[in-house]
Amino acid sequence: MSDQPLTEGEIDLALSDLPGWSHANDRLERTWTFPGHLQALAAATGVGLLSERRDHHADLTVNYDKLRVSVTSHSAGDKVSAKDTDLARAVSDLLG
Amino acid sequence: MSDQPLTEGEIDLALSDLPGWSHANDRLERTWTFPGHLQALAAATGVGLLSERRDHHADLTVNYDKLRVSVTSHSAGDKVSAKDTDLARAVSDLLG
Repeated sequence: MSDQPLTEGEIDLALSDLPGWSHANDRLERTWTFPGHLQALAAATGVGLLSERRDHHADLTVNYDKLRVSVTSHSAGDKVSAKDTDLARAVSDLLG
Repeated sequence: MSDQPLTEGEIDLALSDLPGWSHANDRLERTWTFPGHLQALAAATGVGLLSERRDHHADLTVNYDKLRVSVTSHSAGDKVSAKDTDLARAVSDLLG
């Protein structure tokens, strides 16, 4: 998968198919709310499994029942690349 | 367990028995580094189990192989209380 940074237009196009995700500070981010803390941690572990398979890892923050997933591509100069939109799609498929 | 904010002296005394933890911005924080991403997520889940038993939850951040644990007491006006030093001790017992 390409390490090239996506253009603003390419990111907007990708986001149109990624409800709930936002683009800011060269990252794609989305926050989920779960019934409780352990469900949020289980979700984080699921995202981690997807990340390991891709060798591309999201930053994960759990605050009680909330999980924030944040992705950027260090290999693309800390910009958003196709690796991020691919991982975001997989995470949305996992977490709804 | 008391919801009263600890004094600066009480926090310093507690920290003397909590190697690696630091006190800043009315929080106790410590970061661990693990062999990989999934180990960091397993550790986060372990901290979550300790938190659930206490009904007192740490904020958890996983960046690849690193887990940051950050605690404060909303019930003590977002200050450090005995609930935080108790959870920090339990987390150190779990993660080393």
